[in-house]
Amino acid sequence: MNEQNQQNQQQQNQQNQHPTPHGSSQDSRQAAKGVTVPKGFVAASTTAKIKPSGKPDMALVVNEGPEYTAAAVFTRNRVQAAPVKYTRAHNDGTFHAVVLNSGNANACNGAQGDRDAETTAQAVADKLGIDAAEVAVCSTGLIGDVLPMDKVLGGVDAMVPQLSSEESAGHRAAEAIMTTDLVSKEAVYHGDGWSIGAMGKGVGMMAPSLATMLVVLTTDATIESADQAQKALTGASSTTFDCIDVDGSTSTNDTVILMANGASGVSPDPEEFAAAVHQVCLDIAMQLQADAEGVTKRVSITVSGAATDAEAKDAARVIGRDNLFKCAMFGSDPNWGRVLAAVGMAPVEMEPDRISVSFNGHPVCVNATGAPGAREVDLSGADIAVEVNLAVGEGRATVWTTDLSHDYVEINSAYSS
Amino acid sequence: MNEQNQQNQQQQNQQNQHPTPHGSSQDSRQAAKGVTVPKGFVAASTTAKIKPSGKPDMALVVNEGPEYTAAAVFTRNRVQAAPVKYTRAHNDGTFHAVVLNSGNANACNGAQGDRDAETTAQAVADKLGIDAAEVAVCSTGLIGDVLPMDKVLGGVDAMVPQLSSEESAGHRAAEAIMTTDLVSKEAVYHGDGWSIGAMGKGVGMMAPSLATMLVVLTTDATIESADQAQKALTGASSTTFDCIDVDGSTSTNDTVILMANGASGVSPDPEEFAAAVHQVCLDIAMQLQADAEGVTKRVSITVSGAATDAEAKDAARVIGRDNLFKCAMFGSDPNWGRVLAAVGMAPVEMEPDRISVSFNGHPVCVNATGAPGAREVDLSGADIAVEVNLAVGEGRATVWTTDLSHDYVEINSAYSS
Repeated sequence: MNEQNQQNQQQQNQQNQHPTPHGSSQDSRQAAKGVTVPKGFVAASTTAKIKPSGKPDMALVVNEGPEYTAAAVFTRNRVQAAPVKYTRAHNDGTFHAVVLNSGNANACNGAQGDRDAETTAQAVADKLGIDAAEVAVCSTGLIGDVLPMDKVLGGVDAMVPQLSSEESAGHRAAEAIMTTDLVSKEAVYHGDGWSIGAMGKGVGMMAPSLATMLVVLTTDATIESADQAQKALTGASSTTFDCIDVDGSTSTNDTVILMANGASGVSPDPEEFAAAVHQVCLDIAMQLQADAEGVTKRVSITVSGAATDAEAKDAARVIGRDNLFKCAMFGSDPNWGRVLAAVGMAPVEMEPDRISVSFNGHPVCVNATGAPGAREVDLSGADIAVEVNLAVGEGRATVWTTDLSHDYVEINSAYSS
Repeated sequence: MNEQNQQNQQQQNQQNQHPTPHGSSQDSRQAAKGVTVPKGFVAASTTAKIKPSGKPDMALVVNEGPEYTAAAVFTRNRVQAAPVKYTRAHNDGTFHAVVLNSGNANACNGAQGDRDAETTAQAVADKLGIDAAEVAVCSTGLIGDVLPMDKVLGGVDAMVPQLSSEESAGHRAAEAIMTTDLVSKEAVYHGDGWSIGAMGKGVGMMAPSLATMLVVLTTDATIESADQAQKALTGASSTTFDCIDVDGSTSTNDTVILMANGASGVSPDPEEFAAAVHQVCLDIAMQLQADAEGVTKRVSITVSGAATDAEAKDAARVIGRDNLFKCAMFGSDPNWGRVLAAVGMAPVEMEPDRISVSFNGHPVCVNATGAPGAREVDLSGADIAVEVNLAVGEGRATVWTTDLSHDYVEINSAYSS
């Protein structure tokens, strides 16, 4: 991305505040956010010089207990980075710490990559006096470059003495994991005497520039079992991160980790806890969508009338990945024919002659036929809501995508960006 | 597309001659081409003013017999334009004529659209003294506008008296079906005493701007049965048109029609005939790829080592549709990590740790690990060959795609282009 683009994008992002998340996290927009908000979590970050830019590129989040319950969700890509393989292998319901680096994905580096992920975990474990199996590892950056381990180990050495429960330590950790992100992403949820904090980077399970999605959630709630934590995280991911689809690409490194320590002494009702995790994930997801590379429009695609919710999600995803549709959104063009053409290729049940489409609440196509005034619907705003009814059942789902802009091409055609 | 873009694109297309097709159609590059080359076929075209631009927008190709064998292949989209529904319903092994219009897709127009397709066929049939069921109908253009039937019927009236076997009549027909195409597309194959002619428009079974793919093939060979013709056409389409994937979008209107009249008195060997149909389809397909909207690179993706040929094709298609990969190609960036990340999402069997990739014959990734010099491979030329080996079997397939350029976004974000 050149400087002019970056400036334009930043102006745009400032103009287009990200979509409003639901629930009480909204109320705390001006209040403390991030991974150090819940009791008993400390964070640190450093500039290990993995990034040529000299910006911060390592972060560490440590759970100080008393409990070490954890859950994780990983990329579905068959090609998986070494840190994903390492963390997945040790995802047995407990983690004490997560170490993260930006500037290098440590993906496709063969056995060397696997050793480097393990060495990183071991270095953190040695410093903290815990077992390496209790350390999760996350990396994001270019695929295929070997991790500069001297820098990584120096970064670990630098971070551990700085671990702090200050809110600013959480902020700086969120900044240190940015790659092509223009803004850092944090969220918070306040329950009755307990809380969830979170930081994230990237743009969802689809990764422009392989800008891997990494998310760390912390909570001082007491969670009865790792199984409960995993169910809450898996459920929340499936309707938030997994429903952002900026360009159909899925990173080799995507990772979402939740750590719970019970430091508040409060055991929230499992349903409330699951809803809170969902809310925090949705907040981060909306921030990811708003900061997607080259975005000028935030587009929600809701498919209803599908045979099942799963089919609705599949159909919405097909529309959200269609470049012609996405170019039309960039051009504020209510070209509903492209929605019909796109959804017609979805491998789901539909009544082709009874499909209806609306843009921002205006019906533009009824029973697969154009509605009066359809070509005049105003899509010039930053947010566009597309609704499609397949006319066969009650299934319903929403997928969030963006437009396909000149900046997307610019950012992603730069040499090994 | 603005004028400057169009000029740039035209210069580019002139500089980048389309890839060389195989076999004897190459030898006749300077010789006669098109649908009127085989004996017993006549063509006409006109400006019916369906297009606001005032460019030619209707064409007619008529088989004068003595045989009327025909075959057709249609879009796989569930949402199908009225002319596709009409022609498919009458695809019983014989067609005497094909009437085509550009400037309006006659798609998503409900029962009115169905009536208009039938009325068009009936008008041609009345003029030619044949049955409406013997007339195939093809349309291409914007979805959701009702066909201006007064203009269409006037166009039919104007064309029939002009039907001619002159080569120039075939050329003008090829020009009249263009939409965002910058050049018309024709091909020819000369057998021993018989020939195949063809015209096409659009950019494959994926249709940027819904620039539907329409292809008409004519031959004076005697084909034993409609079944033989259909098998040859289906087989050829599956490894040519169906392997171009510019942007993953599939038009509501894609149609390929073959008409055979036996006027040469020659019955070619079925295998030779099938190979000839394949060659002509490949020639047109390569012309479609070279003229794809906004193209600056022609990219072939060959996947080998797959479990089956079908899985190889699926995997190649997933890579060919990946926007990050396509942006890297636009930037001449040998970012092989994006190939790995893309193929890792393909729903096919693979050995993730044994995948290899080469660009233009240079190995860039061996056993899922970067090869020396991988970042220095020169991809500045207009043609890029990507080879990926999945290391599980003998399946192999090639898919042709293009880069994702600024011009693609520009062309496809213009208001209802």
